[in-house]
Amino acid sequence: MTKPLFEKVALIGLGLIGSSLGHAMKRAGLARHISGHARSKETRQQALAIGFIDTVHEDPRQAVAGADLIILCVPVGICGALSETIAGDLQKGAIVSDVGSVKSAVIKACAPHIPPGVHFIPAHPMAGTEFSGPQAGFAELFNQKWCMLTPPEDTDETAIAKMVEFWTKCGAKVETMSAQHHDLVAAIVSHLPHLIAFNIVGTADDLEDITEREVIKYAAGGFRDFTRIAASDPTMWRDVFLNNREAVLTMLEHFNKDLAQLTTAIRDGDGDELFAHFTRTRHIRKGILDEEKS
Amino acid sequence: MTKPLFEKVALIGLGLIGSSLGHAMKRAGLARHISGHARSKETRQQALAIGFIDTVHEDPRQAVAGADLIILCVPVGICGALSETIAGDLQKGAIVSDVGSVKSAVIKACAPHIPPGVHFIPAHPMAGTEFSGPQAGFAELFNQKWCMLTPPEDTDETAIAKMVEFWTKCGAKVETMSAQHHDLVAAIVSHLPHLIAFNIVGTADDLEDITEREVIKYAAGGFRDFTRIAASDPTMWRDVFLNNREAVLTMLEHFNKDLAQLTTAIRDGDGDELFAHFTRTRHIRKGILDEEKS
Repeated sequence: MTKPLFEKVALIGLGLIGSSLGHAMKRAGLARHISGHARSKETRQQALAIGFIDTVHEDPRQAVAGADLIILCVPVGICGALSETIAGDLQKGAIVSDVGSVKSAVIKACAPHIPPGVHFIPAHPMAGTEFSGPQAGFAELFNQKWCMLTPPEDTDETAIAKMVEFWTKCGAKVETMSAQHHDLVAAIVSHLPHLIAFNIVGTADDLEDITEREVIKYAAGGFRDFTRIAASDPTMWRDVFLNNREAVLTMLEHFNKDLAQLTTAIRDGDGDELFAHFTRTRHIRKGILDEEKS
Repeated sequence: MTKPLFEKVALIGLGLIGSSLGHAMKRAGLARHISGHARSKETRQQALAIGFIDTVHEDPRQAVAGADLIILCVPVGICGALSETIAGDLQKGAIVSDVGSVKSAVIKACAPHIPPGVHFIPAHPMAGTEFSGPQAGFAELFNQKWCMLTPPEDTDETAIAKMVEFWTKCGAKVETMSAQHHDLVAAIVSHLPHLIAFNIVGTADDLEDITEREVIKYAAGGFRDFTRIAASDPTMWRDVFLNNREAVLTMLEHFNKDLAQLTTAIRDGDGDELFAHFTRTRHIRKGILDEEKS
């Protein structure tokens, strides 16, 4: 066996992303030892039984002791408190990272707790499923998916290069950008679509003239895709919207303005306006399919 | 060969739905002869070359002459004019049907032109892809999909039964309901989701700080599902929104009211409200998955 990239990796949080990272690291031989922490005893036991980690710890400080890579795989809202908890046990030269869908807020919450000599390299793997928990993970989750790194300026280049190699060997394509730009991009390609999906599924559930049974029965008409997105983990998404508030509200403003225009066109029977809008959106789809082929 | 269900079926319109119906009828041996009409010469030639019809006709009246089943597979907006064109050539006892996503408006536009002794049984197969044209069709399109029939009251029961058998043999599950109720159900499970998808893809295309290239590159974050829906045929969807205006506007009102609530929760940092909403929408997804397993 060649020398692994890290001696000991600590996964703090063993849900869908944490467990998938464990599997992906085992597959690629990226760590000599993987330690894990989860708040729930049941999760810890399941994780150990499945085997994507080598040891579990009730206390996150024990999990991170001696680790040269620590990844916070928890909802964005508790990253700050966890950083504070483990701060005293981080060894010099270690890398601390996370997997949150929001980056500016995570940096603001975590960075003050990271001791000098420890590298903080926030990450956002754009991968997920509608399922949660340690049994939902699989090694291929990150394959061909983007992972965005948003290291603050002046971050050690060697540490960044190591995290690029880490995510590449987990199967992902890696891109580096500023946290601020990341949050805008994520707001439109991920956060707003999720909000809209959560919203429309809720709307359908509230109607008086149409039963839930009918909505479920006839969901194939376009609604089904929204329900998959709207079945994502509620805690994770609550924290996303609380922590990327400004960017999401900005995108919502654009969305509402555009929707008001389409609504006016429907109300006025303006077929030309509708046709022009519906034609314009096709080329983006074409771009995505071309991208996937390449 | 057992006696086919129909002697001659005329497909008026040879796009995705018309061509798929041709393939499905051939597969199940539902017609002794299938005639077709399309406005464009290229479409007619392609359809004949592919072979899902037996004859093509530039004049829709020639296509329907002698047919015992005529199916209008055209955008909702031209069903009325086409009915008027072919009215004089419909033989007594024939069934006229359509495949439009809107039913009340189609009935209002077509029914006045249907001669006495001809049965009018509107239909809406809830099936489609993002692709259009005679080459997009395939026999399996309707398999396990719902087809809604909305026959006006007093429609001949034998003719209805024949159309139930027709669609069942094309692979679909058939349900009968009033046109008015259909239009409400379609508005929430299909029309509103499409409008929202068209809208959000348009919004993403307009942003100043984020390039189209980035939107395409990172689309996997949830946005991708919307682009598939928003790549649907513009003419068809223009006509849907023009012809199911009231129901769509009603659903949009509900949607906007709900979205305003979610927006307020984000602005106020009300995590409990967000969590409660995101939890509530999960059971609908569960219902859909259970339905598909059954």
